[in-house]
Amino acid sequence: MEADVLLVPAPPDPERLIGRLVIVLDILRATTTIVTALMRGARAVIPVVEVEEGRAVAARLPPGTVLLGGERGSLRIDGYDLGNSPREYTAEMVRGRTIVLTTTNGTRMLRTLAGAAEILVGCYLNLGAVARTAAAGGRDVLVACAGRLGGVALEDVVGAGAVVAALEEVAAPLSLTDAARVARELYREYAADVGRSFRDSAHGQELLRLGLAEDLAFCATRDLTQIVPGCVDGVIRPAAPPGPVSEGPPA
Amino acid sequence: MEADVLLVPAPPDPERLIGRLVIVLDILRATTTIVTALMRGARAVIPVVEVEEGRAVAARLPPGTVLLGGERGSLRIDGYDLGNSPREYTAEMVRGRTIVLTTTNGTRMLRTLAGAAEILVGCYLNLGAVARTAAAGGRDVLVACAGRLGGVALEDVVGAGAVVAALEEVAAPLSLTDAARVARELYREYAADVGRSFRDSAHGQELLRLGLAEDLAFCATRDLTQIVPGCVDGVIRPAAPPGPVSEGPPA
Repeated sequence: MEADVLLVPAPPDPERLIGRLVIVLDILRATTTIVTALMRGARAVIPVVEVEEGRAVAARLPPGTVLLGGERGSLRIDGYDLGNSPREYTAEMVRGRTIVLTTTNGTRMLRTLAGAAEILVGCYLNLGAVARTAAAGGRDVLVACAGRLGGVALEDVVGAGAVVAALEEVAAPLSLTDAARVARELYREYAADVGRSFRDSAHGQELLRLGLAEDLAFCATRDLTQIVPGCVDGVIRPAAPPGPVSEGPPA
Repeated sequence: MEADVLLVPAPPDPERLIGRLVIVLDILRATTTIVTALMRGARAVIPVVEVEEGRAVAARLPPGTVLLGGERGSLRIDGYDLGNSPREYTAEMVRGRTIVLTTTNGTRMLRTLAGAAEILVGCYLNLGAVARTAAAGGRDVLVACAGRLGGVALEDVVGAGAVVAALEEVAAPLSLTDAARVARELYREYAADVGRSFRDSAHGQELLRLGLAEDLAFCATRDLTQIVPGCVDGVIRPAAPPGPVSEGPPA
C-alpha cells in the first residue's frame, strides 16, 4: 500500500487519482467544520464553490431542512446562517439538517478530485478513524491538502503528515512517496503540539488576529469522533462507523 | 525580506517571480554538477532541455571549446562527453570549456524561471555563499526545487530548508511563507545528516541502485566553494565572489 500527499492544491494529474482513496484536509477550518457538523447530527454537507451557487442549491431543498454555511475572508457570508467556525455547528443548530457549505479553499479542493475512487473528509477530530478506514480499504492513498489561496498551507501539510503517521501504525508495510515523506517528517517536528503549526502558519495567524483562538484549539483536538465522512456525487455523508449522535444519511 | 519556496516544479505563478531573486536547486545532481564544473574552471554552463538541442547548441560553438553533458534515466546520453555525475567534471576535463548540459529535472526548471529578476544556482557545495549573496542583494527570495519528474523531491525540499536556514543567519529579520516554513522545519529533521535525506528519497535510492553512492556523498558536501553561479540570458557563469580556479566568463 502506498501513501502520497498533494502538498499544493493544484488539480492533481488524473493519473495520481485513478484507483486511489483520497483524504481531503482543510484543517483550518473547512474539513474540521464538516466533520463537526456530521458529528453533531447533520444529515449531509453539500460543498459548493460560489456564494450564489450555495443559495441556489439551498433553494432547491425543502424549506426548514437546510442551512447555508461558509466564509469569505474567514468571515460569515452576508445572509448565510452559519460561518466556517466549527463551534457554530452545535447539535441544536444542525441536527437533522443538510448544510450547504462554501469556503475559500476546502470546498474548491473537493471539486478537483472527481477522478478518485473514493473521497474521505479528514481532520484531527477523526484522525484515527480516517486512518483505520483507509487502511481497511486497502487502496493506495492520496492525502490532499486544500492549502490556502492556491498555495501551501503549513497546517495542512502537518495534518497530512499526521494522517501518514497514523496510517503507518495500522497499514504497515506502507510505502511513501517523497511528498508523503516530506509531510510525515514535518509532522514529527510538530507532533507534540500540532497547535504550534497553526500559530506558525499564515492562515492560523489570520484567524488569531480575528479573535478565533478558540477555533484553533478546537481544530487541534484529536480523535473526538469515529465519524469518517465520505463524498459521493458531490454530497458528504457520515460513513461507517457512524458516531452515536449521527442520524444517518438522508433518504 | 521574505523567503518563499517552490516545493513542486510547476511553472510558478508569474507574480511569485516578479522582483525576486530565485535560487534553483536540483541537489541530485544537476545544480551540484553545474557548481562543480564552474568550481573546476569551466567558463560557462548552457542548460538545454532536449538532447538534440544540446547537440545543436554545441555545434554552434568553436570546436574544442565545448563539452556535451547530461543524463537521461540518471545515465550518460549516447554520444555525449560527460554524464551528470559531478565527479566526472574534473579540472582536466572542463577547465576553460563551455558545458552544454541537459538533465531531466534541473535544466527544465531553469527554463521556467525567465520572469525572475535574478537567478542563482545553489547546492550544498555553495550553500553559505549563495545565502550571503542573496542576503546582500536585499531582494525577496524564492528557492525553486527542481523536483523529480514533475513531482516533489525530498532532497530538494530539505535543501531548500537548508538555504532558508542559512538565509536566516545572515538576513534577519526574514519573513517566511508557509512553504518556506515547511522546508525549514523539514530541514531540521535532517540537518545532522543531509545524506539521510538522499537515502530516504526515491531519487537517491535510484542512484544507489545504479552504484552512485560516491555521488551522493559528494552532493552532501557543504561549503566546498564560494562560487555562486548566476543564469543570465540562458547562460550560467560563475558570479562574484569567483573561486580561485575560475577563469571568468567567456568573451
